[in-house]
Amino acid sequence: MRDQALGYALANENAQLEELKELLSIPSISAQPQHKSDIARAAQWLVDHLRAMGMQRAQVMPTAGHPVVYAEWMGAGKDKPTVLVYGHYDVQPADPFELWHSDPFKAQVRGQNLYARGASDDKGQIFVHVKAVEAYLKAAGKLPVNVKFIIEGEEEIGGPSLDPFIEQNAQLLASNVALISDTGMPQPGLPALTYALRGLCYMEVEVTGPKRDLHSGSFGGAVYNPIQALSEIIVRLKDERGHILIPGFYDRVRPMDDDERQSLGQVPFDDETFRAEAGIPATWGEAGYSVLEQITARPTLDCNGIWGGYTGDGSKTVLPSKASAKISMRLVPDQDHEEIGQLFRDYVTKVAPPQVQVKVKSLHGGRPAIVERNSPVIQAAAVALEKAFNRKPVFVREGGSIPVVSTFKRVLGVPTVLMGFGLSDDNLHSPNEKFYLPNFYRGIQASIYFLDELAQG
Amino acid sequence: MRDQALGYALANENAQLEELKELLSIPSISAQPQHKSDIARAAQWLVDHLRAMGMQRAQVMPTAGHPVVYAEWMGAGKDKPTVLVYGHYDVQPADPFELWHSDPFKAQVRGQNLYARGASDDKGQIFVHVKAVEAYLKAAGKLPVNVKFIIEGEEEIGGPSLDPFIEQNAQLLASNVALISDTGMPQPGLPALTYALRGLCYMEVEVTGPKRDLHSGSFGGAVYNPIQALSEIIVRLKDERGHILIPGFYDRVRPMDDDERQSLGQVPFDDETFRAEAGIPATWGEAGYSVLEQITARPTLDCNGIWGGYTGDGSKTVLPSKASAKISMRLVPDQDHEEIGQLFRDYVTKVAPPQVQVKVKSLHGGRPAIVERNSPVIQAAAVALEKAFNRKPVFVREGGSIPVVSTFKRVLGVPTVLMGFGLSDDNLHSPNEKFYLPNFYRGIQASIYFLDELAQG
Repeated sequence: MRDQALGYALANENAQLEELKELLSIPSISAQPQHKSDIARAAQWLVDHLRAMGMQRAQVMPTAGHPVVYAEWMGAGKDKPTVLVYGHYDVQPADPFELWHSDPFKAQVRGQNLYARGASDDKGQIFVHVKAVEAYLKAAGKLPVNVKFIIEGEEEIGGPSLDPFIEQNAQLLASNVALISDTGMPQPGLPALTYALRGLCYMEVEVTGPKRDLHSGSFGGAVYNPIQALSEIIVRLKDERGHILIPGFYDRVRPMDDDERQSLGQVPFDDETFRAEAGIPATWGEAGYSVLEQITARPTLDCNGIWGGYTGDGSKTVLPSKASAKISMRLVPDQDHEEIGQLFRDYVTKVAPPQVQVKVKSLHGGRPAIVERNSPVIQAAAVALEKAFNRKPVFVREGGSIPVVSTFKRVLGVPTVLMGFGLSDDNLHSPNEKFYLPNFYRGIQASIYFLDELAQG
Repeated sequence: MRDQALGYALANENAQLEELKELLSIPSISAQPQHKSDIARAAQWLVDHLRAMGMQRAQVMPTAGHPVVYAEWMGAGKDKPTVLVYGHYDVQPADPFELWHSDPFKAQVRGQNLYARGASDDKGQIFVHVKAVEAYLKAAGKLPVNVKFIIEGEEEIGGPSLDPFIEQNAQLLASNVALISDTGMPQPGLPALTYALRGLCYMEVEVTGPKRDLHSGSFGGAVYNPIQALSEIIVRLKDERGHILIPGFYDRVRPMDDDERQSLGQVPFDDETFRAEAGIPATWGEAGYSVLEQITARPTLDCNGIWGGYTGDGSKTVLPSKASAKISMRLVPDQDHEEIGQLFRDYVTKVAPPQVQVKVKSLHGGRPAIVERNSPVIQAAAVALEKAFNRKPVFVREGGSIPVVSTFKRVLGVPTVLMGFGLSDDNLHSPNEKFYLPNFYRGIQASIYFLDELAQG
């Protein structure tokens, strides 16, 4: 069955590419209301496609926002595991258009890459699994495991509708493992499994000094300036190496053992490339950790925005009433974003100068996630990747968040396998987004192997 | 001659009020292009008025911006001093209109106050001197001294045209003393002479971290955040009591002697009123100085604005490329704004974290000003005020800047007498601006006395 599927996939690479191009031609931009009909079109396209290849119950399911595409194939029976494949069909806006070398919604192959908005994030990557499942169904008429697809349309806008959808449809989505391809590989040819994601605790601090804006000539010198106070608060949050000074902040950080650090040390990471990408002369960060550990395995705190007083052209001599900052913390297992939010609030209130008033509010939170590297599903994925790429995968942690991973854990009780096929130069969210085609085709093979490995389980 | 003028002024209070109302009915808002014809109308109204009352060479003089009104009366002869009376006929915008209790451009008397935009700032105050001069000319046919009026139309927009105008017309404006009424009195019935003004050094600091905005999930932890760096710079500018830490900053500050501090101590100043006006629970500032000294006699540093990163609604996990702040210093005699700007630049560059780039630019500068309290012109003004108000004036320093004072000193070589008739509740630049009418009428008398005193000098 597996080899039939592999053979079918290999024989149909052209069709796979043409179909992906068709999906990529739909500008399903979730952030822009004028593309609402394109969102609907992309969802319907996927439903038609999934139905045509033999998936059951394929349907567009409404939510409070953009709809979810669902389909399943449960013919493997109750004694076989069920895999929940997640992806998203919505894409980022494509502007500035003038920086694209080809139409973002007319996918073009140049060299080994396919250029289009959504090529890698995430239409190309979810299509890997669609095509793997199709290969089984077309070549063997069946799958080695049960499969459910859930493909959402709000990922790029922070998806307010997905969590309620999963909660309301927990029965429908019942499964044993989730599979997501929305991450990356360190370099071409080297597959990777992401086993940990950082969580997020995003806060806003508003400092009020005088009740109204004052004239700095008439009041300056006797009134505590809220920008000054906010700067002091910010400076007190971290030491000079970026170690966070909020008491209790690190209490729940799961320590990395030597084995894990050694494993992370095997991930190719080039400091010079990182500096070039970031556009900085030198990296900087918490003592005792590599740059890769700093950006993926350690919690961090960053100011995301600051504003207050006069910000227009020229000089206005105002002593402002208010100053505000958005400050977010990336969390690692087993930190809890609600607890961290409270620690942040307490500390900021405590270190604020007594002459000002401080309001702290929580804007967003997301749990960090971790899957044991030794768990059977991760091992199955590792075997599948090695077979498809002829190389053992590296195990990586990701600095960002994929909130649905913790939702799957919390609501459905399932671990998630993050099998990513993106590359760091894929230009996600930027002009000239692309997908490296060898990863597309090998990804389909890896997915075929993975379903087979799970069935051996 | 003086008593004739006093008598004329007293007998014509109604006419004085009605004429001021007429001037106030012209919405000469310098900041709004749609009021350009009103600016021209106000200037012409003044020229006509000055000419009709017997002033010579009354004319609207063009500048690169709004015109200057000029008029003179030189009949006192070369052995009498020449007084240069400065004021401005432009006003602040009147919005928000809905907060006014009467039309801002239909002056209305309620109680002892005249309500209109410009009533106190500065049409009412310059009109004090116009009416004093008129009283002499109408009652006695002459003045005890030579008088020149220069009334500009760009004061409320930071007047870029006035300095070049004074420089180009230095000969025309040659005089022995300048007289300005654009300041205030500590309380009704207590006259005041302002003998010192603070200068200004207004800078902008731009900090660049990474070359472009980064994703805080992918880069946070290994990249120095420019908001963090800017906060550190701001915190390093002052100690916890507001003492400025820039080396050399205080080197040229002219020390206050006991006599001066005692004199300032006699100025009524109510901390509670100050706190209420500022809307703060407690004052704060440099140790060893009273609040009044802190806000008028000591140099200060305030952040006037700050911005960087994401400042919209909700949460965006950006690690920004840039953060900026506007930071200004109020200077006191004999600090030099250019020297202070350089010290600021050097210090900021030095204390900035090495991981970021810092650009410092100067946005605006103005010299502090001081006139010796014992100088003959100030003493003449003190005598005049005492005669008009039946109370000895207090000597005050002003926290803000009146840049023309240092221009008069620099270009014309003349000291300025700042004889103010405003009150702290006059609502300058706010809805319901007003002028306390007893100050209008007593001001006219004080001006009559002052010209007479100068002639004796």
